[in-house]
Order: sequence, then structure tokens, then C-alpha cells
Amino acid sequence: MKQIFSEILMETKGQGLYNFTDKTLNWLKKQKIKDGILNINILHTSASLVIQENADPDVLFDLKNFFNKLVPMNNDLYKHTTEGKDDMPAHIKSALTNNQLTLSIKNKKLMLGNWQGLYLFEHRIEKHTRVLSHHLLGN
Amino acid sequence: MKQIFSEILMETKGQGLYNFTDKTLNWLKKQKIKDGILNINILHTSASLVIQENADPDVLFDLKNFFNKLVPMNNDLYKHTTEGKDDMPAHIKSALTNNQLTLSIKNKKLMLGNWQGLYLFEHRIEKHTRVLSHHLLGN
Amino acid sequence: MKQIFSEILMETKGQGLYNFTDKTLNWLKKQKIKDGILNINILHTSASLVIQENADPDVLFDLKNFFNKLVPMNNDLYKHTTEGKDDMPAHIKSALTNNQLTLSIKNKKLMLGNWQGLYLFEHRIEKHTRVLSHHLLGN
Repeated sequence: MKQIFSEILMETKGQGLYNFTDKTLNWLKKQKIKDGILNINILHTSASLVIQENADPDVLFDLKNFFNKLVPMNNDLYKHTTEGKDDMPAHIKSALTNNQLTLSIKNKKLMLGNWQGLYLFEHRIEKHTRVLSHHLLGN
Repeated sequence: MKQIFSEILMETKGQGLYNFTDKTLNWLKKQKIKDGILNINILHTSASLVIQENADPDVLFDLKNFFNKLVPMNNDLYKHTTEGKDDMPAHIKSALTNNQLTLSIKNKKLMLGNWQGLYLFEHRIEKHTRVLSHHLLGN
Repeated sequence: MKQIFSEILMETKGQGLYNFTDKTLNWLKKQKIKDGILNINILHTSASLVIQENADPDVLFDLKNFFNKLVPMNNDLYKHTTEGKDDMPAHIKSALTNNQLTLSIKNKKLMLGNWQGLYLFEHRIEKHTRVLSHHLLGN
């Protein structure tokens, strides 16, 4: 059994969903593991990870919009307000989605459905550099 | 270390939670792995996976009902409406729950609590065939 | 490849987020695995797991408060009411967050961001003993 650790960086420019499927696939191609598990963790608590439809950009707009209505950026609602009106909502949205994805690799291919893509869901309004740890374990 | 890949199909007939614990257990029994990790992925973005109470069917009704109220099937709320009034809400409900479950297998047993069952959460109103990839890695 | 199974117990005293990062780190130190995957499952359906900010306790208050407003403890809203006004909301909150965390271990260190901590999110109002299964697989 082999294990490979790496980090993929994503630059975000405000709230929204950022597709990183190709970055992960390009990284995977270079690794000498045929079958295994790929554990992806986002090392932040104000951005998160989701698997979502990769076809219609309106889906991404609606997702961002839904979460902004569900978790309003309104300081009157929260005690934790010192880091900006978007910070506490970001933590809540992170709890409602995922910090991590555990994916299966078979024959060097990522097992995803045809319409599935990997997305970083940025919840902060300013730009950020986000670290996605990639840990591949297999043969 | 061995790895086994398989797919379990589930037929759904509209919105609700479908217990697939026995299907997974029956499949597990036939595999020659004693201890390991079972990674289950649903290869769709309009149905999802949850671990929930396996005792009172009212719990399943209340879950379906809560999510339908939280994410209304109302086209006025969304830009992505071409695939039906239930499609965008399905993507959102999928983001709010899980695309994947990573479970531990010890001594050929699935480590679940007494009251825990594995459920496919179907968010579409028409019937569908859903693919659950099962990837077992262990000794 | 080695595998180690263990259980960590957490005593909870009502709703809120309980940090168990140090318990997991202390357990990890004693294990003879350098690199691998740590799969943590909570064996209950009325408490859950989240990775959240470990700095400002107001974040934990706001999280508890947000989920209580989103999923009210009001028996009129649910069919499943026999186990108390907090039980059905607990199942829903569990579905909205996570039953399990899959973490990467590199060089005996848990790969978490600086501001990330592991939390048990208790959704019941009475005190409980919660079982967190820890399954470590690696070299």
C-alpha cells in the first residue's frame, strides 16, 4: 500500500462555487496508484466542499443564493461579528455542507457520476487562497 | 491489502428515504475482507445519502417534510428551472446532506449504532434508478 | 497495512458543541501508525460531528442558536414526538451536519487547519454518553 500527500491551492474571488475537478484529475494522473481512496480536506472553516452538477451554471448561482438567504449576513443575528458580517454565516454554511470528501479511485479513474463535479464553496466575500489537502492511499 | 468495487442499484418511486442497510450488509457478507473501510458514493446530484434512525417511520416522514419546507419546489425562487420544479431543490437538498458515506468494517461487521440505518434520500418526484458505488478496502 | 479500532466516549450535558480534538490527538499519539486515514463515526442519530473554528466560543453559541432557529423544538411541526420535543429536531440537525469525519494522518499528525477543531454537536437537551468510534488504517 502506498500513500501520497499533496496540497492543491485554489484562489477564490468572493462567494460562489469553484470547480476543481480538473485540478484533482490532473494531479491524480501523475500518481502511481491505480486503485484507492482519495481523501480531500479543506483546511478552513469559512469555505467548504460539495459535489454538484457540472452542467448548468444557474445551479451554482441558485446554490449560492439559497445559502445566502438561509444564513443571512446580518450582524444582528450573531454574537461572533468581529471578523465581518460574512464570517459567522460562513462558519454556519460550512457546517451545513462538507469539510471533506472521500472519493474512490478505480483503474486510475475518479468514480464520479457523469454530472458530478468537485466544487469549493467559498463563503467569504473577499478573495482568499484556500488549501485543499489531497491524500491518496492505495495500490 | 485488498480492494473490491461494486455497484448497488436502488429503484426509487418519488421523494423519501429508502433504507439500503440490508443490501449493503448482504453484499458485505460475500466479500473476503474482515477489517476495512467501506466508501459508498451516490453517483447523482439530485439524491443523497444519510445515516438515520431505523425505528420509527414517522422520522422518515418528518425528514422529507422538513426538507421540502426548507427548500420549496417553487420555480419563482430559482434560475435553474428547465428540469422541473423539483430539480433545483434536489441539488440544494443534496448539498445540505451527503453524497458519500465512509464506514468502518470490523470483524466483517458494519460499525453502526443500534438505531442507525443507511438511507438513500430521493429528492426527485418521478421514479429513478440510483447507483450507489461500494468500494471496500481492507484485509 | 495496520488497522486499529477504538472508541472514545464523550459526556454531554445538553445542546451545544463539545471539542474532542485533544482526546483524538492523545489517542493518536499512542498508536503505531505514522501515515493513514482516521475514520470517526458517531454511533447515534441525535448528535453529530462537525469541524469548526476552535478560537472564539461565540462561534459555538451562534452555531447552536442558528440550528435551534432553523429546526424549532415545536411538536406541532412533527409526527415523531414520542421521544420529546428535542428528538425529531435532533435527527434533522444530524442530517444537516455529519455522522462521520474522515481525516488524514501524516507523520503522526492530524491534518487540520490552524483554526480547525473536531466537535461533537449534541442536539438533545438531557445529558448523554456518546460513542465516537475511531478507526485508524495505515502504515
